[in-house]
Amino acid sequence: MRIELVTIGDELLLGQIVNSNIALIGSRLLKIGLQLAAQATVPDELTALEAALRGALDRSDVVITTGGLGPTADDNTKDVLCSIFECQAELDQPVLDDLLKRFGQKLSETIRTQAVVPAKARIIENSVGTAPGFIFDQKPKLMIVLPGPPRELTPMLDKYVLPRLSEMVGNGKVFRQKTFRTTGIGESDVDRRMHQLMKSVTGVGYGLMARPHQVDVRLTCLAESAERADQLLQDIGGLVESEFGDNIFGKGDQKIEAVIGKMLKERNITIALAESCTGGLITSRITDIPGSSDYLNGTIVSYSNQWKHELLDVPEETLKQHGAVSSESARAMAEGVRKISGSDLGLAITGIAGPTGGSAVKPVGLVYMALSDGESTTVKKNNFRGDREMVKFRSSQVALDMIRRYLLSL
Amino acid sequence: MRIELVTIGDELLLGQIVNSNIALIGSRLLKIGLQLAAQATVPDELTALEAALRGALDRSDVVITTGGLGPTADDNTKDVLCSIFECQAELDQPVLDDLLKRFGQKLSETIRTQAVVPAKARIIENSVGTAPGFIFDQKPKLMIVLPGPPRELTPMLDKYVLPRLSEMVGNGKVFRQKTFRTTGIGESDVDRRMHQLMKSVTGVGYGLMARPHQVDVRLTCLAESAERADQLLQDIGGLVESEFGDNIFGKGDQKIEAVIGKMLKERNITIALAESCTGGLITSRITDIPGSSDYLNGTIVSYSNQWKHELLDVPEETLKQHGAVSSESARAMAEGVRKISGSDLGLAITGIAGPTGGSAVKPVGLVYMALSDGESTTVKKNNFRGDREMVKFRSSQVALDMIRRYLLSL
Repeated sequence: MRIELVTIGDELLLGQIVNSNIALIGSRLLKIGLQLAAQATVPDELTALEAALRGALDRSDVVITTGGLGPTADDNTKDVLCSIFECQAELDQPVLDDLLKRFGQKLSETIRTQAVVPAKARIIENSVGTAPGFIFDQKPKLMIVLPGPPRELTPMLDKYVLPRLSEMVGNGKVFRQKTFRTTGIGESDVDRRMHQLMKSVTGVGYGLMARPHQVDVRLTCLAESAERADQLLQDIGGLVESEFGDNIFGKGDQKIEAVIGKMLKERNITIALAESCTGGLITSRITDIPGSSDYLNGTIVSYSNQWKHELLDVPEETLKQHGAVSSESARAMAEGVRKISGSDLGLAITGIAGPTGGSAVKPVGLVYMALSDGESTTVKKNNFRGDREMVKFRSSQVALDMIRRYLLSL
Repeated sequence: MRIELVTIGDELLLGQIVNSNIALIGSRLLKIGLQLAAQATVPDELTALEAALRGALDRSDVVITTGGLGPTADDNTKDVLCSIFECQAELDQPVLDDLLKRFGQKLSETIRTQAVVPAKARIIENSVGTAPGFIFDQKPKLMIVLPGPPRELTPMLDKYVLPRLSEMVGNGKVFRQKTFRTTGIGESDVDRRMHQLMKSVTGVGYGLMARPHQVDVRLTCLAESAERADQLLQDIGGLVESEFGDNIFGKGDQKIEAVIGKMLKERNITIALAESCTGGLITSRITDIPGSSDYLNGTIVSYSNQWKHELLDVPEETLKQHGAVSSESARAMAEGVRKISGSDLGLAITGIAGPTGGSAVKPVGLVYMALSDGESTTVKKNNFRGDREMVKFRSSQVALDMIRRYLLSL
């Protein structure tokens, strides 16, 4: 079954809003084993819109559209649909009744036009906004017309569209997928090893998704039964797990900050941070996780050497002799913040985020991180590429992974 | 001039990442008075990709592509380009030299393939990632091929692509725009006031772009000469400035953290922060700005009450009597962090980011912020809507604005 998505609206092409509907619909379809074959964005303009919709209907079995259903003058979608499916726009009494129920006397003339719909359309109820969706069932083709705002179309997708498409697949095949998230290995390395690993595997496919210091491996499987698909994914998943070992930090869409949060909580371990070059970013990521106050005591963002000395007890000689960006200072900061906070672990990070402040000996991107548990302190030296925000992000990713690997080793 | 964008990659259609390149490129083009006529996403699949690119080249004067240039096996774009432009892929020595300079001996075979490029392409240097971009100049058609990651393609757009397209427009008309960024007023309020203001204006248009606690007003003008356009925008811009006054925090794409950074630096004022519910986010935003170490002494992220007391000198009675989330604790935290850091200003923030921890009296989203200058301390109480990350972000936005308004009042 070939499915195309057409997203409609000038605002998408003018860059006024980010088109998140592609990812929203793509990922929802994937859950029922379907994939978007293509996607296009067209402006609110009659000719271009009609050409795009007719082309998509020619090529595909199912066409989904989003947007272009608002009551304002530039929304031409309904006219185009009437032209394509050769019908008139008519007042739909149930839709009008629903609008009257929700708006009462405040129902404006403009919103009232939302109840005028193409006669051949079956209505998809919109419980959030005012624009109903439509299904045009012209066997063997199907066109599904949805409003643009994600919060309106999401419930419509889940309640009406996905069940309908699931039924249509109905070839007995079941789709399953499994994602492993890795860190500490580059994309090309992961690709080479997966390629080798999957050479003799049939029935399971794979894809990679690279982010800074993170590569996701996604296994997909289409099988005769759910049991068969699950079994295949479990078998091949096992191979992937032994191939990448502790480079795998999570599954599905787990974030590394959530993974270490869970580990800290389970092991009843507390942590405090001393951040210099990352400027609070690591702590902000850790505190994005609900319940992080259970294991995070606090952080000192010590941009000044004065605080490194006064609050974190880094000896003045260390700062003078080795500089704030040094293995020695990182170690002292980690030990200091652990001690003053009374935490089990202390993590420190100091480096040069750039663009200025670098030298031949200590270039931009040089970042030291240290982790202390009271008995010993490990220091890691990194050289990161990228601009200031990228150096900060890469540093946070590697530092969070340093915590994770320490916890694994316990 | 008709411009189409083709975004390439399975990951976009599978919903693994949100396609932000449409908005990025759409808005960048708009700055030079150009618009995307259409956009399409195609998978990493030879036949579909070649058909999409050939179709776009037929219909349009300029085709821009993003993605599909990585070194992994599923990136087929270069093969398709060689087929469309009838040339071979060859090793480009300058690209290889640049990669060798950046990777040295660590340059893998896979990354080395990035230096193999279609012979008819002019290279667009990629200073962030490993995949160079290409320009195919087949008058009157132009094809511009860029890598997928926004961080890589943005500098390439700004440095090479937009100047080249600007040159091509050359129809005698000059496009200019001016953006004002406001905070502290809602979108519908801004819209109503702009509508009123622009009623009698001709030759200048406007558009709004709303973000959490920020509404951008964009004035656009197409005129016979640069002087005429600049004059019109200056005149109307003046009206906008007097309408919104100090709700305008910046122009163009200035961030509020950059604006307060500049103000602090100019006035030679230092600051320290005590963050609780925002968990380091405000400090991370402040430290995204190069040179922020000149005015930021440091931050204490005091997740625990112990640190609020021990490090920030918040009296135990205050914490006990009013709670950590209270006007009194916010005040004491701001005064404490100012004093212990020896800074001119102390900013504190304490609240309930959720999803748990709220009560009838102190609901999720309740956030106190305090700013102390040693003579007096101002406390602001807020009730923010949204999930944990949204409450954190809204808090950071309003806190940064609190600093800005204080500095304006000096």
